[in-house]
Amino acid sequence: VITVLCANPALDVTYRVDRLTPGDVHAVYSVQRRAGGKGTNVARVLRQLGEAVRLVAPLGGTDGERYAAEIAESGIELVAVPVGAPPRTSVCVLDEDATVFNEAGPELAASEWDAVVDAVLQPRPDVLVLSGSLPAGVPTDAYARLIRPDVVTVVDAKGPVLAAALTARPHLVAPNVAEAQDILGAGDAAQCAAGLRSRGAGSAVVSCGPDGLVAATSDGTWIARPPRALSGNPTGAGDALTAALAAGLARAAPWPDLVRDAVATSAAALGRDTAGEIDLDLRAELLGQVVIEEVRDAADQHS
Amino acid sequence: VITVLCANPALDVTYRVDRLTPGDVHAVYSVQRRAGGKGTNVARVLRQLGEAVRLVAPLGGTDGERYAAEIAESGIELVAVPVGAPPRTSVCVLDEDATVFNEAGPELAASEWDAVVDAVLQPRPDVLVLSGSLPAGVPTDAYARLIRPDVVTVVDAKGPVLAAALTARPHLVAPNVAEAQDILGAGDAAQCAAGLRSRGAGSAVVSCGPDGLVAATSDGTWIARPPRALSGNPTGAGDALTAALAAGLARAAPWPDLVRDAVATSAAALGRDTAGEIDLDLRAELLGQVVIEEVRDAADQHS
Repeated sequence: VITVLCANPALDVTYRVDRLTPGDVHAVYSVQRRAGGKGTNVARVLRQLGEAVRLVAPLGGTDGERYAAEIAESGIELVAVPVGAPPRTSVCVLDEDATVFNEAGPELAASEWDAVVDAVLQPRPDVLVLSGSLPAGVPTDAYARLIRPDVVTVVDAKGPVLAAALTARPHLVAPNVAEAQDILGAGDAAQCAAGLRSRGAGSAVVSCGPDGLVAATSDGTWIARPPRALSGNPTGAGDALTAALAAGLARAAPWPDLVRDAVATSAAALGRDTAGEIDLDLRAELLGQVVIEEVRDAADQHS
Repeated sequence: VITVLCANPALDVTYRVDRLTPGDVHAVYSVQRRAGGKGTNVARVLRQLGEAVRLVAPLGGTDGERYAAEIAESGIELVAVPVGAPPRTSVCVLDEDATVFNEAGPELAASEWDAVVDAVLQPRPDVLVLSGSLPAGVPTDAYARLIRPDVVTVVDAKGPVLAAALTARPHLVAPNVAEAQDILGAGDAAQCAAGLRSRGAGSAVVSCGPDGLVAATSDGTWIARPPRALSGNPTGAGDALTAALAAGLARAAPWPDLVRDAVATSAAALGRDTAGEIDLDLRAELLGQVVIEEVRDAADQHS
C-alpha cells in the first residue's frame, strides 16, 4: 500500500468566466467543487494507475465532511484525522488562463499534528508520499521527521520544507526546476538534480514542465521529454509525476522505465482539465514514445 | 415590521491579495465569510437603523445553516424557507480594486418559490423590500406578483425583473442610473426618475453613486447629494440607500427628510469595508449637510 499524506487538504473550486478583468463583476457560468490539495491529487492519480492508496488528511467541519464523502466514492482509503478547523478553499478562475486564489488554511494544534503523524506511520507504509505545503502551526521540519530509513519516501515540497526534508535523506525528491533553484541558488535542471542528491536525497527528479525532466539516481542520470508539445491544463501535471514515481518505486521498476512512465503520466495530465486526473489512453500512447537519454558526466566517463 | 425578501441569498467570501494578476497563483492573506445577497445587506442596515426587520430567504444545505446561524446572531428575525440547494457563493477579491465572481445560485422548484411567497406575505408586511436578483427557475414577474396595493413595496431590481415590477405599480423603485437607463433606453437621472413613474412606479429614486440621487414623487422632485466627495468601498452603498428609503416609508417621513436620510445613509456605507454595514457616526454627521434642491419642471411651474 502507498500512503499519501495530504497535510493541508483543500476544497478546490473552479469558476469559469468569460474573461477575468480586475475591478469588474463577473458572472460565473459554471462551478465545480472538488476535494483538492496536492496529496489528494497524487492519491487520485495513483488510484487511476491501479495502485492501492491510503490517504491521510486532517479534516474538520462540514467542509471536511464534504471532502471525506467525495474521497469515499473514489476507492481511495481515507484516514481522516479529526481536527477543529475545516480545510481551506482554493478558487481557480478559468478563462483563457487559470488564475488561482489559495487560502492559507487552518492552523493545526500540536496534538492534532501528532495524530496525523501516528496515522501516517501506523501501519508502516511500503511507500510514503509527502506532497504539498504544511499547515500553519506545524514546524518546517515536519516532513523531515516523517522520513524513516525503512520507508521509501517521496517528497514533493518546496522552500524551507524541502530543504529540511533533504537533511533526513529521503529516498526521492521531485521538485520542479524553479523550486530546486530556489533552495540551491542556481543551476540548470541536471545541476539541480545532482545538487539535491549532494544535499541528501537518494535520488532527485527535477521536472521542467513541457520540456520533461532530469532524474539523478545512484544508477545513473537520465534526461527525458515528451515526444511532442502537448497543449492542455498543466495544473496537476506535477502531482501526476509524483504519483507515477511513487507507483514505480512501489513496483521496484528500473529507473529508465520509471522515468519514461513519469514523463508519460505527467503529460497525460494535460489531457484532462481537472487536477488529479490523467488521460489513460494518452499515457499509454506516450509511454513508448518518451525520448530518453542517459547523461554521462565527466566523473562517470572517468570510471 | 419591515419585511425584506432575499430571494437569492449568498455566502459572501472576501479575499485580500497583494495584487490580482490574471494567470497567476495568489496567496490569500485574509479571508472573510459572511451571509450576503442584496436583501441580506438591506436587512442588516435596517437593523443598524433600529428598525424591526423580518428577513425571508430560501435556504438549504450546510451553507444555508451557516447563513442562518450568522443572521440569528444579528437580531434580525430570519424566516428561512427550507429548499433543497445551498445558497450560492460570491467571491470578492480585494487589492486596490474589488473584483467579484458571482455564482448564479441554485434553481428553485415552483413549490419552493410558492413557500417563499407565503412567507413574504403572511403576516402582511407594513413595508416590503424586494431587493436583488431572482433565483433561476423563478419567473421574471415574480416580484410583480408580490406587489399588493395595501403593502408599501420598495423594489431594487434591474432588467426585465424591474420592468415587470413596474407594471404592478410598486410604491417606490430605487435603481441606479445605469439600471434605469438600461430599461428606459436613455436619459439623465431626472429623466429616468420621471420615466420610471410614467412606467408605473408611485415614486422613483435614481441613485448616481457619489453624485447623490434624484427622487421623483407625487409630492415633487428633488436632487440631493453628499456635502463632499467621500472615499471608501462603494459595495453596499445601494443597499444602504434602499434600507434608508424603507425605514423612512415605514415612519411616513416627508420626502425631503427621506431624501436627506437616504443620501447620508448611503454615503455612510463608504465608511465601512463590509457591505451591509454603515458608519452611524458618519451618517449623523452628514445628515444635516446633505445638499438638497427641489426641481421645478415646466409642468410644475405651469400650475
